Amino acid sequence: MASAVTCSAAELLPHLGSSANATAAAEFICGRFSAVSEYLTQTTYAVDTTYLLFSAYLVFAMQLGFAMLCAGSVRAKNTMNIMLTNVLDAAAGGLSYYLFGFAFAFGAPSNGFIGKHFFGLKEFPSQAFDYSYFLYQWAFAIAAAGITSGSIAERTQFVAYLIYSSFLTGFVYPIVSHWFWSGDGWASASKTDGNLLFGSGVIDFAGSGVVHMVGGIAGLWGAFIEGPRIGRFDRSGRSVALRGHSSSLVVLGTFLLWFGWYGFNPGSFLTILKSYDHTTRGSYYGQWSAIGRTAVTTTLAGCTAALTTLFSKRLLVGHWNVIDVCNGLLGGFAAITAGCAVVEPWAAIVCGFIAAWVLIGFNALAAKLKYDDPLEAAQLHGGCGSWGIIFTGLFAKKEYVNEVYPGFPNRPYGLFMGGGGKLLGAQIIQVVVIIGWVSVTMGPLFYLLHKFKLLRISRDDETAGMDLTRHGGFAYIYHDEDEGSSMPGFKMTRVEPTNTPTPDHHHHNVVV
Amino acid sequence: MASAVTCSAAELLPHLGSSANATAAAEFICGRFSAVSEYLTQTTYAVDTTYLLFSAYLVFAMQLGFAMLCAGSVRAKNTMNIMLTNVLDAAAGGLSYYLFGFAFAFGAPSNGFIGKHFFGLKEFPSQAFDYSYFLYQWAFAIAAAGITSGSIAERTQFVAYLIYSSFLTGFVYPIVSHWFWSGDGWASASKTDGNLLFGSGVIDFAGSGVVHMVGGIAGLWGAFIEGPRIGRFDRSGRSVALRGHSSSLVVLGTFLLWFGWYGFNPGSFLTILKSYDHTTRGSYYGQWSAIGRTAVTTTLAGCTAALTTLFSKRLLVGHWNVIDVCNGLLGGFAAITAGCAVVEPWAAIVCGFIAAWVLIGFNALAAKLKYDDPLEAAQLHGGCGSWGIIFTGLFAKKEYVNEVYPGFPNRPYGLFMGGGGKLLGAQIIQVVVIIGWVSVTMGPLFYLLHKFKLLRISRDDETAGMDLTRHGGFAYIYHDEDEGSSMPGFKMTRVEPTNTPTPDHHHHNVVV
Amino acid sequence: MASAVTCSAAELLPHLGSSANATAAAEFICGRFSAVSEYLTQTTYAVDTTYLLFSAYLVFAMQLGFAMLCAGSVRAKNTMNIMLTNVLDAAAGGLSYYLFGFAFAFGAPSNGFIGKHFFGLKEFPSQAFDYSYFLYQWAFAIAAAGITSGSIAERTQFVAYLIYSSFLTGFVYPIVSHWFWSGDGWASASKTDGNLLFGSGVIDFAGSGVVHMVGGIAGLWGAFIEGPRIGRFDRSGRSVALRGHSSSLVVLGTFLLWFGWYGFNPGSFLTILKSYDHTTRGSYYGQWSAIGRTAVTTTLAGCTAALTTLFSKRLLVGHWNVIDVCNGLLGGFAAITAGCAVVEPWAAIVCGFIAAWVLIGFNALAAKLKYDDPLEAAQLHGGCGSWGIIFTGLFAKKEYVNEVYPGFPNRPYGLFMGGGGKLLGAQIIQVVVIIGWVSVTMGPLFYLLHKFKLLRISRDDETAGMDLTRHGGFAYIYHDEDEGSSMPGFKMTRVEPTNTPTPDHHHHNVVV
Repeated sequence: MASAVTCSAAELLPHLGSSANATAAAEFICGRFSAVSEYLTQTTYAVDTTYLLFSAYLVFAMQLGFAMLCAGSVRAKNTMNIMLTNVLDAAAGGLSYYLFGFAFAFGAPSNGFIGKHFFGLKEFPSQAFDYSYFLYQWAFAIAAAGITSGSIAERTQFVAYLIYSSFLTGFVYPIVSHWFWSGDGWASASKTDGNLLFGSGVIDFAGSGVVHMVGGIAGLWGAFIEGPRIGRFDRSGRSVALRGHSSSLVVLGTFLLWFGWYGFNPGSFLTILKSYDHTTRGSYYGQWSAIGRTAVTTTLAGCTAALTTLFSKRLLVGHWNVIDVCNGLLGGFAAITAGCAVVEPWAAIVCGFIAAWVLIGFNALAAKLKYDDPLEAAQLHGGCGSWGIIFTGLFAKKEYVNEVYPGFPNRPYGLFMGGGGKLLGAQIIQVVVIIGWVSVTMGPLFYLLHKFKLLRISRDDETAGMDLTRHGGFAYIYHDEDEGSSMPGFKMTRVEPTNTPTPDHHHHNVVV
Repeated sequence: MASAVTCSAAELLPHLGSSANATAAAEFICGRFSAVSEYLTQTTYAVDTTYLLFSAYLVFAMQLGFAMLCAGSVRAKNTMNIMLTNVLDAAAGGLSYYLFGFAFAFGAPSNGFIGKHFFGLKEFPSQAFDYSYFLYQWAFAIAAAGITSGSIAERTQFVAYLIYSSFLTGFVYPIVSHWFWSGDGWASASKTDGNLLFGSGVIDFAGSGVVHMVGGIAGLWGAFIEGPRIGRFDRSGRSVALRGHSSSLVVLGTFLLWFGWYGFNPGSFLTILKSYDHTTRGSYYGQWSAIGRTAVTTTLAGCTAALTTLFSKRLLVGHWNVIDVCNGLLGGFAAITAGCAVVEPWAAIVCGFIAAWVLIGFNALAAKLKYDDPLEAAQLHGGCGSWGIIFTGLFAKKEYVNEVYPGFPNRPYGLFMGGGGKLLGAQIIQVVVIIGWVSVTMGPLFYLLHKFKLLRISRDDETAGMDLTRHGGFAYIYHDEDEGSSMPGFKMTRVEPTNTPTPDHHHHNVVV
Repeated sequence: MASAVTCSAAELLPHLGSSANATAAAEFICGRFSAVSEYLTQTTYAVDTTYLLFSAYLVFAMQLGFAMLCAGSVRAKNTMNIMLTNVLDAAAGGLSYYLFGFAFAFGAPSNGFIGKHFFGLKEFPSQAFDYSYFLYQWAFAIAAAGITSGSIAERTQFVAYLIYSSFLTGFVYPIVSHWFWSGDGWASASKTDGNLLFGSGVIDFAGSGVVHMVGGIAGLWGAFIEGPRIGRFDRSGRSVALRGHSSSLVVLGTFLLWFGWYGFNPGSFLTILKSYDHTTRGSYYGQWSAIGRTAVTTTLAGCTAALTTLFSKRLLVGHWNVIDVCNGLLGGFAAITAGCAVVEPWAAIVCGFIAAWVLIGFNALAAKLKYDDPLEAAQLHGGCGSWGIIFTGLFAKKEYVNEVYPGFPNRPYGLFMGGGGKLLGAQIIQVVVIIGWVSVTMGPLFYLLHKFKLLRISRDDETAGMDLTRHGGFAYIYHDEDEGSSMPGFKMTRVEPTNTPTPDHHHHNVVV
């Protein structure tokens, strides 16, 4: 602590004698120490802000990852639609989070339910919050809506998207983050008044619940209410894969999400220049180590989930599928996000292994229930996110919990680590509460949109693709119309067999 | 300041008495303080270099963003051509900026017009400049040429590109950056001798003018002189969109540019460990806060411009267009770049809102004047960049201006903020000067290239596409030739209608 | 050094007199200095960890770069296959490097041949190693296998990949990194006991040998043993280019690799807050400057190689080829990687110039020998990597060598810089040893796989493409099957000429 460096002349003076000289000496020396202390404080702000800003940039890169993952996972005819939603999640989220979202989430002091300060970044910056913190939280807020847009892809009206996305990013999500992350959220593990839920509070370090479950459950209701895409289940009810149009984009998006997750999880420490208690370890150990460990647990959970998925799918389906491996990997990340900071690396491997099976299980269930989610978003973010919350209640390690959530030394930790069931209880409460809160807010919203015929696009639009009917054209033109302009009857990419001329069938992929 | 920490034994000695012991004590104590001071200085270098280097890497990532944005915005047949120019902007720019570009730009002391030191990084590093600063400035230099290549895409000879690109990156751009950014540039707001233009100097913090206008105006002349692409305006003079071949690449590029802009704007502070005056705020406030605020203003301007474009275009054109939204977003960024560090977040929203309309307006004008710019680069970087410079003259806030450009406490600031018209005057001078300088250098160059038939490709090349005729083949091969090698007469992707056999028409997209 | 700041009361006491007051004064003052010292130590850990972690994230981004480069460089029908190997390199590498790879590489004290501590990150973190260091080294380990997968792309069984990749990442590579990078590796330039090979040790700063040659030589054996792809050389033995399917992905991958290389090379310093001797330069000069210089040498080598390749290929082949320029660029990077930290910027230009010709030469040789390497990986990473090692032996500068490898002031340096031939000798040893070690490990492995028919896929699989036969389908679907489901006989993209109906030829690119 820089405070240990400060030096009071009044304290030093008696030691130096009480002459005029001694006073001057004490002031001289302590003046220097004060300058040192101030400089160290400034250094700390600069180092921590550097750390937080670049973490925020990484989290923002996840929005690009989502855009590419989503684009690659839908059919070509809806590419521009889904990418537009991803761009808008970030853009509209920027304005709404500035105007009120951040205030709802972190505007302490509050009543524990919803924040009420810092609208439009009023009173910014302060001792409590700097702009970098706002930017970091904004990058989180826009992630949730992105998850939901995956669930309801390829069949949702753009107007419906504009409505639910604003509501989710501007209200539903900030409330949840207030409960679990704000210093006076009723279920927060870092509640400043120490009055913790079950004496523990919920440990959702980087948001398996706050971000992933919220986005996933919202998507679940949207996709459930509007039903599956045309052709997703055949007449006999069998599941028919409607494969995405570009594996390259899926892999690109997955790697970008992986890259960005290093901002999401380790970045959630917010600061890096913070010492821990040195009685058990040397001074080399501090928050910087915990941050590195969090990057390692995140990596191992994703890696394990990817490998588990690879071999499971090989056994279950018969081929080595990169798309499934990507989804498994992301499932592992979504799961470890809650506990990444408070578990051992070996436990992260357990987390990832089970996350892969959770995803496989929920996908099988979805197929059975004829639930259609083009990105597997509800299964992945909702399902694996839930598992991650429970996992944290089982494997959180005493030492790490106390370092990451300091100030209440006898707090509960993971059940399997000997920490009793209270943390697990709090974690289960979180799962239930998030399902409940998102259901009572987003469920009715999607239902109303559905009732007012604002939710689902028309059958014709769905068949033709939204890009063509609503967004100005097909996303790709690999062969140019203009070359052929002098050749009447010249046809592009889309071709009919020669024996069945279909002059009435238009070539909408070359709209200009 | 680390200097406040230093301690002179001669100063301390009298306070401790004058015995031999006292001398030793003073030397002992002050020796320790000197060591502290030195260590703090080193820490500051390390922190600031970390900040600057990673910012430079982000700015470099914009080159990738440009490459993808350009590639997606042109027709498939010119993809390799435009990507090659993007790679070469970076590569040739690396050598030329090392050899002389940096020297022209920052080789102080100079005559105010052109720098003349540090050719080939001679005398590097020094107290003034370290390698990280060179790298950061190089990443800026290569951006300008990238903008221009967008304006003249799809119809420019590769040799012309090599010539104008070298001239722009090696001479035209460095001169401009010397004028507005170097410590002895005649119009720089941070002129070290304090003899500021209009008592103010131009505030172009991260380069709405220096980078964006320069690239955009250069592109304007190039595109104007060589004329529109074949088919861009039909016989009746109506504008015909020649759509780019891949929306996915456009969105990828846009997000990468957004990502990189966090290096471009907040990174332009160059250092992060710097305190500000604490009389009005606590010690939590320093350059790190201003950097965070700059990231926020940047974000808000882009977000607002994107949303404004979305709804405007919906009203004007009738559909929700992701490509337009991407361009609007980038227009907002180009505009906020000049003033990002010295305006309030709410002002950034104003900036973005108007930037969107500026782009719409200039695009309408371009269509009317039959000006063809495949990337809207002149409109976007030139138009929105100009607006951003003016905007800064209107909305720059007193407190921020003095923090970011310290040392001259009574300098003018934004007209609407009560700071008088002098800053606005200087800003207008910048717009005029950049238009003039780029026009008298790049205009004649493009005209000469045109006269010597080096500028525009042949009609045949343009129809066939440059990739095929100059760059070794079509950029994409989704279906492989070799499989069909045993089937004579087997044809690929490009297909003619069955009733008009054209055996003389070659299938050049499958060149191997 | 933070240690210079520490202050012993026993030392200070005599200077202050020996009264009780003096004792208290000394303890008071020294207590403050101790706090300062501790805080500076913590600051150093935080700054260095921030630097190392973000460098690690950049190196990880190279895996994405590799994935895109590889995907774009193979034919569309094998896209999912190659991308899966890239994802798995990272995922499987994460587990194996955690379990034993890191232990083999850095588990000192060792016998100089193979490390033997830290299995499963036991005893982590310690004074010597923190988690961030593990993460950084993992990101390096997975790069080597990625290189190899490029060499044997489009024709290798997935099972073979799983086997060689595990062996390479888990054993072959860690051993090499132990030899050349670990503090007790027999050929390491930073050997802690000072018993250096040829009094010098090998300077392979960021791994031209350890990473690039290892991956390239492994690929050489794999590609040599399984032979060229079908159609790669025609009946008369002429080389036939089997062009990759997407230049956009190649350029995307190349730029991402460039971006990530800033983590690879400058990041290899591991720490940034470290002062150098100030007798020759001011305090502005320290490891932060050397890091910046390393970023500059890296940039210049790549840029020069790119430009050299551009003009050479224009002369040799007749067109301006972006793919070749990308490969040349990467060749320049692979070469400068060994010496980036210890050479002058101008020497980096020499390095890149020759690297381009090395690549051109090895490619010509490969064509002559009918060696088929879809990514030119053996030529690029093996060939240019070897050149880079030799280059370092010629151009390493005395001052830089002593700063980067401190403690042995009279060590040899580059032959051309007046440092004698000993360093060059050590460098040649490295080239020979790596070729030998990789050949005696990976050669037999590939041979055994070949013997047991586990290496190469069947002729049918190769013709049809692995994606279809092994990985669940074609990577791209630009035109959706479902739209046409009601139109029997409707055919997609792939089209036969009308006069040669081939009903038996299936349209496997639209598998759903």
